Amino acid sequence: MSVITVERKILEKNEQIAKRNRDLFQEQGIVVLNFVSSPGAGKTSILEKTLQELRGSLKIAVIEGDVQTDLDAQRVARYEVPVVQIVTLGGCHLEAKLVQDALQNLDLNGLDLLFIENVGNLVCPANYDLGEAIKVVVLSTTEGDDKPLKYPGMFLNSSVLIINKIDLIPYVNCNLSAMKKNALQINPSLRIFEVSCFTEAGIPEWCTWLRKKDVSGQ
Amino acid sequence: MSVITVERKILEKNEQIAKRNRDLFQEQGIVVLNFVSSPGAGKTSILEKTLQELRGSLKIAVIEGDVQTDLDAQRVARYEVPVVQIVTLGGCHLEAKLVQDALQNLDLNGLDLLFIENVGNLVCPANYDLGEAIKVVVLSTTEGDDKPLKYPGMFLNSSVLIINKIDLIPYVNCNLSAMKKNALQINPSLRIFEVSCFTEAGIPEWCTWLRKKDVSGQ
Repeated sequence: MSVITVERKILEKNEQIAKRNRDLFQEQGIVVLNFVSSPGAGKTSILEKTLQELRGSLKIAVIEGDVQTDLDAQRVARYEVPVVQIVTLGGCHLEAKLVQDALQNLDLNGLDLLFIENVGNLVCPANYDLGEAIKVVVLSTTEGDDKPLKYPGMFLNSSVLIINKIDLIPYVNCNLSAMKKNALQINPSLRIFEVSCFTEAGIPEWCTWLRKKDVSGQ
Repeated sequence: MSVITVERKILEKNEQIAKRNRDLFQEQGIVVLNFVSSPGAGKTSILEKTLQELRGSLKIAVIEGDVQTDLDAQRVARYEVPVVQIVTLGGCHLEAKLVQDALQNLDLNGLDLLFIENVGNLVCPANYDLGEAIKVVVLSTTEGDDKPLKYPGMFLNSSVLIINKIDLIPYVNCNLSAMKKNALQINPSLRIFEVSCFTEAGIPEWCTWLRKKDVSGQ
C-alpha cells in the first residue's frame, strides 16, 4: 500500500508542475506537442519531416527525451532549430519537472511550436502529463493493428494518432481499417493522420492541420 | 530519496521471488525463456513459429504478459500448448510474483521449455528478473539500427538477441551490420539470430539452438 501512496504523490507532484508548464506555454502563446510511441515507430522521422515543412514560416523548438544517447537531438539539430536533449539514464518516461528544467535552456520568446519527443515506450509515458496542449501517439503499420487494444492507456490519453510507415502496408500483416477501428474504439475523438516519412505521403495534411493549431492558439 | 528506497525494496523483493522461481525451474529441469521487446517487434509471432517447429518433440508451456487483452494467449493456444495469460492492467512489466502466481495454473511435470512473453516495453522489464534462464530480446529491422545504443539496459541484461523481420530490410532504412555492431558494443556476449516469421528464414537455426539448450539443461 505504501508503494501506491508514493506513486500517487509522484503523480500529484507531476501534475502540479505540468500545470505550471501549461500556464507558461499559454501565457507565451506556444502550442506544445508531446510525441509518444514504441521505440522505432518514427517519432524523430516525423519531427524531421515536419521541421523541413514548417521551419521557414514558424518558430519551432524541440525537446528530445531518451533513455541514453543524443542521437535524436543530433538528427533534429540539422534543421537548425533549438534542441535540448534530456537523457533519463534508464528512466522510462519524461516527467513535467524534466521539461521544466529543459525550458531553462530554451528561449521561449516568440516561439510558435514546441515539440517534445518522449522516451520510446507505449506504456509509462501515458500517465505523465508534461503540460502539453496536444499528446500525439505515433503507431507504425509494422507494429500490427491490435496495438490500440493492447496498450489502451496511451490511445485514451492522446488527442492525435499518426499512423506511420503506410508505405510498408503491402509487405506487412497490418489491416489499416482494423487499426483505425481499434484506436477509435478506445478513443472515439482521436484525430487520425496516415503518413509515410519515406514517400512523404500525408505529411502535408499533418502540417496543414498543425499550422491551423498555431493560428488558433489551441 | 524515499522513492529510491521503495524502488530498491521492490527490486529486492522481486529478486527473492525470482530466485525461488529459478530454483523451482532447475529442480524440475525446465529451461525458461523471458521474451522482451518493443510492442510489435514480433515476440508472439516468434513463439508461434517456435511452437510449430518444436511442440511435436518437446513439452512446452507459455505464460503471456499483456497490459490488456488476451489476444496473444488466444494466438498461442491454437498450437495446443498450455497457456496462462497475465493481464497487468496498465503495469509496464512482469514481475517474479506474477510469474509465481501464474505457475499455480500450470502443470510443470515433465515440462521441457517454458516461454514467458513479457509486456511490450524496451525499458522497464530490463530490471525485473523473473527467474528465467535466458532473456531473449527481440528487435525488428523496422525499428532502426540505433536501438541497442538508445535502450542499452535491455541489451546488456539479455543473453540472446533475435533480429526479426529481416524480409523487410529492402524496404526500410536499417543497416543490419550496424544493428549487430551496436548490440555487441553494448553486450559482446549476445548470441544473435536473424529471422523472418513471414518467410521463416532463420527459424530452424533458432529452434536447433533451443533444442540443444533443453538437452544441456542450461
